[in-house]
Amino acid sequence: MGTVTAPWKQLLLNALESNSHLKHSSYFQLATIGSNGRPSNRSVVFRGFHENSDNILINTDTRTRKIEELKHCPFAEICWYFTDSWEQFRINGRIDIIDGSNPDSEKLKIREKSWFASSPRSRLQYLGHYPGLPHLSEEPQETSVDPSAGPVSEFCLLVLDPEQVDYYNLKTNLRLMFTSTQSQIGEKCWTSERINP
Amino acid sequence: MGTVTAPWKQLLLNALESNSHLKHSSYFQLATIGSNGRPSNRSVVFRGFHENSDNILINTDTRTRKIEELKHCPFAEICWYFTDSWEQFRINGRIDIIDGSNPDSEKLKIREKSWFASSPRSRLQYLGHYPGLPHLSEEPQETSVDPSAGPVSEFCLLVLDPEQVDYYNLKTNLRLMFTSTQSQIGEKCWTSERINP
Repeated sequence: MGTVTAPWKQLLLNALESNSHLKHSSYFQLATIGSNGRPSNRSVVFRGFHENSDNILINTDTRTRKIEELKHCPFAEICWYFTDSWEQFRINGRIDIIDGSNPDSEKLKIREKSWFASSPRSRLQYLGHYPGLPHLSEEPQETSVDPSAGPVSEFCLLVLDPEQVDYYNLKTNLRLMFTSTQSQIGEKCWTSERINP
Repeated sequence: MGTVTAPWKQLLLNALESNSHLKHSSYFQLATIGSNGRPSNRSVVFRGFHENSDNILINTDTRTRKIEELKHCPFAEICWYFTDSWEQFRINGRIDIIDGSNPDSEKLKIREKSWFASSPRSRLQYLGHYPGLPHLSEEPQETSVDPSAGPVSEFCLLVLDPEQVDYYNLKTNLRLMFTSTQSQIGEKCWTSERINP
């Protein structure tokens, strides 16, 4: 079965390439809807695409507020601004939460893969104190992880399935809106239109 | 009357100072709730604080989607990441929309001041084609503005009144949560707590 690459994905891969000298080029802002109905927004790290798809991977801790928020409302919008090439991607879609209790063994494999793809130092974060609770102790709970051990229960993978992408190049003033539709056989198809900035 | 500076404001002023060599340090991501109930997220430019207050100013076009969204739900969250000092500010609050039809003459003065504070080049943007509509023409509608002319009707000032600020320093791992309360005489008071990152 052939894979059709989403037309905005090549633009994003180009932006990642041309900004790769900047550590922060893999950071983007993820907006969700808070449990109080207000918007919520934070920086997270891009962990790549799932295989050849256009689904975006994000690692997080099951104890963070965004998990509770996404269980209430699975929709999110990424705002990703590339500071060197002056390009912005607004990626709207639905997020699938994959924690250790997921019944789908295929999904658990993707979660495990993302765990091992992250550095031992970032794996350590999941062994820390409960995020967002009052800070009571300076002592870290753990100082090392067994590099061969699988994901801890706090480790959670988020998979964002994009439905609409708003691309804007501030240098050329080009703005493109990419919209997906489902074909009759359930395949995702993308259309694009040039719109006013 | 004395003005009490919000405790997080000094941290933000320090971050602006230490990142001021980077043009993009004045850009942040503003999350709102879309008319379809989904999160919406885009980069906007920081236009300073309103006088000595902790209210954040943002210039925008009345024809952008965020105006419609904020009329439905006035709450927003800023996520502001400083790429050189590795500091993140998540600023949650309510937005007041000040367009040319505002009945409050004091607010209209603030709007006018923000118009004249912006560069002639950024003023030109408000004379362009309708943002987000299909791009039909390469020709810009206007190529110059009279520098002494007041704000055009498309020019809109947003004033965000912060209620909660989540500060996180990725270098030191310090995370502070600032929460505001209203005193009995209607003054805003801030409390802060160190929380786990």
